[in-house]
Amino acid sequence: MIKASVIGGTGYAGQELIRILMRHPEVEVVTIGTRSFAGQKFSDVYGNFETITDLVCEATDIKLLAEKSDVVFLALPHGIASKTVTKEVLEKTKVIDLGADFRLKDINIYEDWYQTEHFNQPLLEEAVYGLCELHRDEIKKAQLISNPGCYTTCSILSLAPLIKHNLIDIKSIIVDAKSGVTGAGRGTALELMYSECNESIKAYKIGSHRHTPEIEQELQLLNGQDFNILFTPHLVPMNRGILALSYANLTAKLTLEEVKEIYKAFYRDEYFVRILENRMPETRWVKGTNYCDIGVTVDPRTNHVIVVGAIDNLIKGAAGQAVQNMNICFGLAEKTGIDFIADFPI
Amino acid sequence: MIKASVIGGTGYAGQELIRILMRHPEVEVVTIGTRSFAGQKFSDVYGNFETITDLVCEATDIKLLAEKSDVVFLALPHGIASKTVTKEVLEKTKVIDLGADFRLKDINIYEDWYQTEHFNQPLLEEAVYGLCELHRDEIKKAQLISNPGCYTTCSILSLAPLIKHNLIDIKSIIVDAKSGVTGAGRGTALELMYSECNESIKAYKIGSHRHTPEIEQELQLLNGQDFNILFTPHLVPMNRGILALSYANLTAKLTLEEVKEIYKAFYRDEYFVRILENRMPETRWVKGTNYCDIGVTVDPRTNHVIVVGAIDNLIKGAAGQAVQNMNICFGLAEKTGIDFIADFPI
Amino acid sequence: MIKASVIGGTGYAGQELIRILMRHPEVEVVTIGTRSFAGQKFSDVYGNFETITDLVCEATDIKLLAEKSDVVFLALPHGIASKTVTKEVLEKTKVIDLGADFRLKDINIYEDWYQTEHFNQPLLEEAVYGLCELHRDEIKKAQLISNPGCYTTCSILSLAPLIKHNLIDIKSIIVDAKSGVTGAGRGTALELMYSECNESIKAYKIGSHRHTPEIEQELQLLNGQDFNILFTPHLVPMNRGILALSYANLTAKLTLEEVKEIYKAFYRDEYFVRILENRMPETRWVKGTNYCDIGVTVDPRTNHVIVVGAIDNLIKGAAGQAVQNMNICFGLAEKTGIDFIADFPI
Amino acid sequence: MIKASVIGGTGYAGQELIRILMRHPEVEVVTIGTRSFAGQKFSDVYGNFETITDLVCEATDIKLLAEKSDVVFLALPHGIASKTVTKEVLEKTKVIDLGADFRLKDINIYEDWYQTEHFNQPLLEEAVYGLCELHRDEIKKAQLISNPGCYTTCSILSLAPLIKHNLIDIKSIIVDAKSGVTGAGRGTALELMYSECNESIKAYKIGSHRHTPEIEQELQLLNGQDFNILFTPHLVPMNRGILALSYANLTAKLTLEEVKEIYKAFYRDEYFVRILENRMPETRWVKGTNYCDIGVTVDPRTNHVIVVGAIDNLIKGAAGQAVQNMNICFGLAEKTGIDFIADFPI
Repeated sequence: MIKASVIGGTGYAGQELIRILMRHPEVEVVTIGTRSFAGQKFSDVYGNFETITDLVCEATDIKLLAEKSDVVFLALPHGIASKTVTKEVLEKTKVIDLGADFRLKDINIYEDWYQTEHFNQPLLEEAVYGLCELHRDEIKKAQLISNPGCYTTCSILSLAPLIKHNLIDIKSIIVDAKSGVTGAGRGTALELMYSECNESIKAYKIGSHRHTPEIEQELQLLNGQDFNILFTPHLVPMNRGILALSYANLTAKLTLEEVKEIYKAFYRDEYFVRILENRMPETRWVKGTNYCDIGVTVDPRTNHVIVVGAIDNLIKGAAGQAVQNMNICFGLAEKTGIDFIADFPI
Repeated sequence: MIKASVIGGTGYAGQELIRILMRHPEVEVVTIGTRSFAGQKFSDVYGNFETITDLVCEATDIKLLAEKSDVVFLALPHGIASKTVTKEVLEKTKVIDLGADFRLKDINIYEDWYQTEHFNQPLLEEAVYGLCELHRDEIKKAQLISNPGCYTTCSILSLAPLIKHNLIDIKSIIVDAKSGVTGAGRGTALELMYSECNESIKAYKIGSHRHTPEIEQELQLLNGQDFNILFTPHLVPMNRGILALSYANLTAKLTLEEVKEIYKAFYRDEYFVRILENRMPETRWVKGTNYCDIGVTVDPRTNHVIVVGAIDNLIKGAAGQAVQNMNICFGLAEKTGIDFIADFPI
Repeated sequence: MIKASVIGGTGYAGQELIRILMRHPEVEVVTIGTRSFAGQKFSDVYGNFETITDLVCEATDIKLLAEKSDVVFLALPHGIASKTVTKEVLEKTKVIDLGADFRLKDINIYEDWYQTEHFNQPLLEEAVYGLCELHRDEIKKAQLISNPGCYTTCSILSLAPLIKHNLIDIKSIIVDAKSGVTGAGRGTALELMYSECNESIKAYKIGSHRHTPEIEQELQLLNGQDFNILFTPHLVPMNRGILALSYANLTAKLTLEEVKEIYKAFYRDEYFVRILENRMPETRWVKGTNYCDIGVTVDPRTNHVIVVGAIDNLIKGAAGQAVQNMNICFGLAEKTGIDFIADFPI
Repeated sequence: MIKASVIGGTGYAGQELIRILMRHPEVEVVTIGTRSFAGQKFSDVYGNFETITDLVCEATDIKLLAEKSDVVFLALPHGIASKTVTKEVLEKTKVIDLGADFRLKDINIYEDWYQTEHFNQPLLEEAVYGLCELHRDEIKKAQLISNPGCYTTCSILSLAPLIKHNLIDIKSIIVDAKSGVTGAGRGTALELMYSECNESIKAYKIGSHRHTPEIEQELQLLNGQDFNILFTPHLVPMNRGILALSYANLTAKLTLEEVKEIYKAFYRDEYFVRILENRMPETRWVKGTNYCDIGVTVDPRTNHVIVVGAIDNLIKGAAGQAVQNMNICFGLAEKTGIDFIADFPI
């Protein structure tokens, strides 16, 4: 059994991770670390765990956890992981970080977008970007995995085949993404109150969301070019799910069927990417799963290709992909413990 | 492997059943029967099954299914099962009926509340009422199991300890229950349209809902007396979940602690009934699970005991309990394949 | 024009009040008092007021407002109004208090349920309980009006005819009420976050909600007897609306038609109470209005009468009734400025 | 008093129109025409009208209504109005059509996008496109007004200043729009059922929605050029509201402040268009109102201008604008009867 610990286990992503790990056939959850709820039974913080676990939240230390864990998951606000993960920790345990600290390879870009200093450039270089479908081989050998952001996962998977094959004008890329409210985390805030979010939609941080450089970094890796994208997130009155529409001008003359074939070929061996044939993705069909559903269409009137991607932000966009990463780097079958069918109606 | 077929597999309960059965370690789903969608791939009807199954819906016959199935689940409108299930069918397969046809033992009560003739009194007598916690021994030997209604399951489990021990005035029982919209099924109807249900609550069929006599039958069995209850259902703007508040006058002088102890003792060995200590049930904590959460309180000002029960109407109130019944009568561990942790936030 | 000021204008009830007053043909809003948002434009706090008003929130004092206002509305947490409203204030302006400080006539009951000392017994006696349909004559002459609570308004109007005519067993009364989330106000709290409330229902403060003694006080006034009721509130995943089901044992032998006639007679001249004939109340039909819709039914099997009441908690349950009170005590037509038709779909 | 009739009064837009007209100080509603609910009291079809009107729905004829009405509103599926509105009708009454029949000036474009023959080219030419802010002078003299679509209104108002002043590359325009469920009307359909829409978002008819040519027609009128746009609608789990994000490449070098000034100047005299300064539009702030809120931003990294527009699809996108049109062509103050403040929380 893999001994797993989670630090930051009482946020939404952390809790989802614990839920998955507790039903994972090869994992034993040894410690739930959390500062805010230290001393409380986890099942008192989250009533869904009633009778399921007696674990008590602990204000613990990554060094201690490294001693007794085969893997430590971090689900923390940015700026903490880069200060606490060390070479010594990584000699004793694998670390899978769900936060942002190790995602951006260029420290200047990190400091620019996060408006804070980064103190751990060496680990930035060592960390593997844990988008499983694109970095599987590196993940297998990684000791420190930086789990991608939710918008990021959906956007990169949506655009990767087009970028890889140089089929679009890289200066024309717009990603218009919509997220459920859990994407904002569990911290209380007026704008996240029920009656403030409910029955309304808004765009926010247009062109300035921190997932932008992360998407750019990974897409640029695919074709070696340098370019900017325009990324717009929205807040949608629903708990979970991301739907991302990616727009770009086709440079190649391709029929819809040809574009579909390219996507199917690109993701041929990927269990968790489903290229839809006869319908477009809707978040309900991936909710509670580790799937990324992708649909493509072409608009000949304006020569655009439009890619629609859908994921569950807390699963493929966070906890599920973290476990997928764990499965890969511990040599387990990749879908072990995360092979969910969406529970419909949500 | 248990070969299982489902007739009526494209309603909400049927689909939920298929979802559970497809991940059940001891089951193989052989046939999905449905008249309305015959010939269509199940994954075209329900997009969550994309890449998961290639099964095609069939307009099939219970006799044929009996030949090739160890168990046939029926998820049909009332009035059909009682006409198609026969002695011959039951010689070849077990039948678990999620509909209402075999729930009421007294044919007159059935005909009175359902306003239709019942043509199968013999099977009515043979059928075992599949409320697992109360009829486990009969279920073990049953060939025909009548799965309880959703409101019913929650209400009976809530009141059983008080009735069994004669602690309340049986003429004072009121059950005020609230259900999510999936309780009404997947048939299109104006009143179930998004913009008609959303942001509003209503009570309906006050004192006249068909689950009333079902609750009465089972409670009466527990103490041998004859009595009526007042049952009020509500439609709540959410997909899933039932919250039932049961009110009754205490006849015994009992403290809250004593009432709690009675509940804990009554359900001591029941994995799927959780008696809450420090909080009251909320539907979110049972959503997507087979649990029935129960909380009790006492109001000394009016001498009432109030029991709060919560279930997921499609799981413990339908598909999950159907699989629990299957597990029992096939000799499997009762929680096999249905040991879910609620996926929160919903 | 009536010069009106609002203290506590940035809570939900306060904001609703300002919205109504700004379209009221006989009112001019002179000051919006609020501590938390002092110095901010009201339209920056609430975007719906963009271009509609340039008023800036002020951290003001009731004494100052009394000088320049014909009426001052208070929408504050309990414990403040009783300390700041004085004889001197009331000599200069009328005060309509939407909070709890002056609702309970018996100071011991107040201190018992609110667990705090009350410092203003004299004004407690002077204050008129502003449930318009029951206290209209006193309201006409009042200088200090205590606007009823939301649950209270709905429950009292639902039960008044039965109590007044002594038709029910007063020891059997149960009110099972359901409220939208705005009922909890605009203060941030984890349990009111979108993803915590959404898609779930819960009961809370069963038998111990502070609106209980308020309902009892007013019902007891109607028949001169002393009795307790059992009141249970619920939180429902919707913004607005209260649906209250009141249960009681009929002592008189009455048909449904007779009960309906009693209700119709009781509320014959009431514009804002609608006794429904062919349907039961649903919150959607009163949302955004000052109506209280009432439906009644009788369950002969258990000899219960069931009354269903529905209001908008922020209008008839708060701001609308406050303006109705203002209209009455300023001699205006009672429906002036509050004669809304529900905007459907919500 | 203006005598107004509505045909198609039991759809969502029709009902909203009747609600507005019944509180309009210069209007008397004389007839509610509807085939489906003929003979039923309007208040039985829509419970919000209980006690407010005794009007009974009639299966009436536009010719008859023309005799007794100063204005007839049509809220019908496409294909009917063009067959029933005649010169004779228009000699007797003004007609404001909320449907699509008279919106597209080019009959070939109509027939192409609606896949049906159009039988009334002469009236197509006579009809005035009722986007009030752009066609006010024509509307004043019009006898037949074609009320714009909901997506259309929001998209055109969002882009008009940029197009008019030739500030963007007209081949780069993408409108990514999100709508609440009422946009799909009140007809029952599986995909509009509560549990099918709730908690999920989807894009649909990407590049092929019928509002596309309507947007193009009006934008082309503003600068005389010919171009196509890419229009993508989404279904969002909320009742009302449209949020449209319009993306385009700036051809001029403009700062954000300059762009804002252009918008403020363009809409300087428009009561119902609010150019936001310090926040971006959210549908909640326009819900239940006739406002179109607009915010702009510029992304220097990709040289895009992004315009965010928000309206209530049933008011500014349908019934409210229809009344605005009526006000204009009857010489009333434009905001008469439609000067609503959004009722928040929704």
